[in-house]
Amino acid sequence: MKFKIALIQMAASEDPSANLKKAVEKIREAAEAGANIICLPELFKSRYFCQQENPSNFDLSETIPGPSTEALCKTAAAEKITLIAPLFEKRAPGLYHNTSVVIGRDGAIIDTYRKMHIPDDPLYHEKYYFSPGDLGFKSTKTPFGKIGVLICWDQWYPEAARLTVLKGANVIFYPTAIGWHPAEKETHGAAQLDAWRTIQRGHAIANGVFVAAVNRTGREVPAPGAPGLEFWGSSFVSDPFGVVLASASADREQVLVQEIDLALVEETRRNWPFLRDRRIDAFADITKRFSEE
Amino acid sequence: MKFKIALIQMAASEDPSANLKKAVEKIREAAEAGANIICLPELFKSRYFCQQENPSNFDLSETIPGPSTEALCKTAAAEKITLIAPLFEKRAPGLYHNTSVVIGRDGAIIDTYRKMHIPDDPLYHEKYYFSPGDLGFKSTKTPFGKIGVLICWDQWYPEAARLTVLKGANVIFYPTAIGWHPAEKETHGAAQLDAWRTIQRGHAIANGVFVAAVNRTGREVPAPGAPGLEFWGSSFVSDPFGVVLASASADREQVLVQEIDLALVEETRRNWPFLRDRRIDAFADITKRFSEE
Repeated sequence: MKFKIALIQMAASEDPSANLKKAVEKIREAAEAGANIICLPELFKSRYFCQQENPSNFDLSETIPGPSTEALCKTAAAEKITLIAPLFEKRAPGLYHNTSVVIGRDGAIIDTYRKMHIPDDPLYHEKYYFSPGDLGFKSTKTPFGKIGVLICWDQWYPEAARLTVLKGANVIFYPTAIGWHPAEKETHGAAQLDAWRTIQRGHAIANGVFVAAVNRTGREVPAPGAPGLEFWGSSFVSDPFGVVLASASADREQVLVQEIDLALVEETRRNWPFLRDRRIDAFADITKRFSEE
Repeated sequence: MKFKIALIQMAASEDPSANLKKAVEKIREAAEAGANIICLPELFKSRYFCQQENPSNFDLSETIPGPSTEALCKTAAAEKITLIAPLFEKRAPGLYHNTSVVIGRDGAIIDTYRKMHIPDDPLYHEKYYFSPGDLGFKSTKTPFGKIGVLICWDQWYPEAARLTVLKGANVIFYPTAIGWHPAEKETHGAAQLDAWRTIQRGHAIANGVFVAAVNRTGREVPAPGAPGLEFWGSSFVSDPFGVVLASASADREQVLVQEIDLALVEETRRNWPFLRDRRIDAFADITKRFSEE
């Protein structure tokens, strides 16, 4: 079965309502280009506020359902597309998640994923804002087969990709917000971007699954004199053998549309039958933090 | 701590004793070049006999310890090197393994790993010859810190790399015998080699560990008129962030020597602390074959 996915690579302004409006416009553009499943970048509605720890940033959160899902559900129904929309979820006062909803083409929320792996590094202070997800790894039925959603830092964890595929996903979407520290870009920037691309292509190969990474772009400076982050764009789609089918620029907004042929999942796995031979009798220690003797 | 590893990329003739003799010569050459840990390719002592199912090929197996380990232990002691030597192990009549021993620089066998993931595909009929390993995933103490050994088909499994690293390994060696089906090389050869390199670089990135893949080279045709396999060489060393530090040719024998700086393991993991955030509370289903609902 063939269908089209669209990755909306966006830059975020300081105005959430303008970002939402732009997202809706780009969803329409993608739908007009024939996309059936459309994915927005992580926390697309705002700047990447996790550069700083500031309690007023919790004002950016919202309930699910809430005003953003209301607008996005209408758009999904109007355009008859399946939509992956990452939001800053307010679950209860003092309890927030980095969440992604899947909205069906009838305009209903059909699934919710809460980011499981939460980073905390200089300029990425996510452990301050987000409680780790408690919904586990999932796959979601769509009219085009099962898809999985993981979010950003999850992309560095082979376990997350594997568990999503064991649930039946044929395409894993990774809404993302990753960029360069400007001071590091010259020395480490190329290796960082390459590692990011490589590990996700690796998940595609290990699992015989399509992978779609959707990043933001643009420089965001949270305060005068702060170095900020330069989000590296480079959204891409990998086929089930790690071949990059489509790739966006580093520094421009772009709607990347790619046809997915699910027959390639079966063809790849028949020729490289990795799922057949997993030593599930010997994997129990994966649930340990470390097991050096 | 810094030390040198050597990857011995060899072609195999039809004469096992000549292959063993050549291996010993190349070990000496690597030791002279300053190598501290030396790794031979999978089943280096013979042609890749698994192209066919033939009971007489079991004659190629030998006990461990046995004549090959005797010769290799002497060489390791004489050259004062740690040696990874993959052998066709005869454990009992009718019970054989694809095994790799680690020989210490005093000439004693200090560890044994039995290949856990056994392939079976056209021209790679390993399930006929080898019983799956029963020693689990391991790491081995050497004078240069802990190393892990996995073998060929294991390289497609993120679980194998992860479990080896959780046991404390800083370098994973992958003795390998992989090549092109000549009829597929033109259409699929580049993608196959790239997938092989990519997934192993992915293991390096996911785990912050050095990876060293040691392949054979040369065309091996088991019978007149058979297509045979063209082993693709391309042995390489990746650093803990997926950067390829050294790489061998596709079609020539080569002793690839590379310095390893273990400080880079800690530096990489401090900057990209993936081990910190693993959701071990949510990984139990990794031990399932499939869990689609």
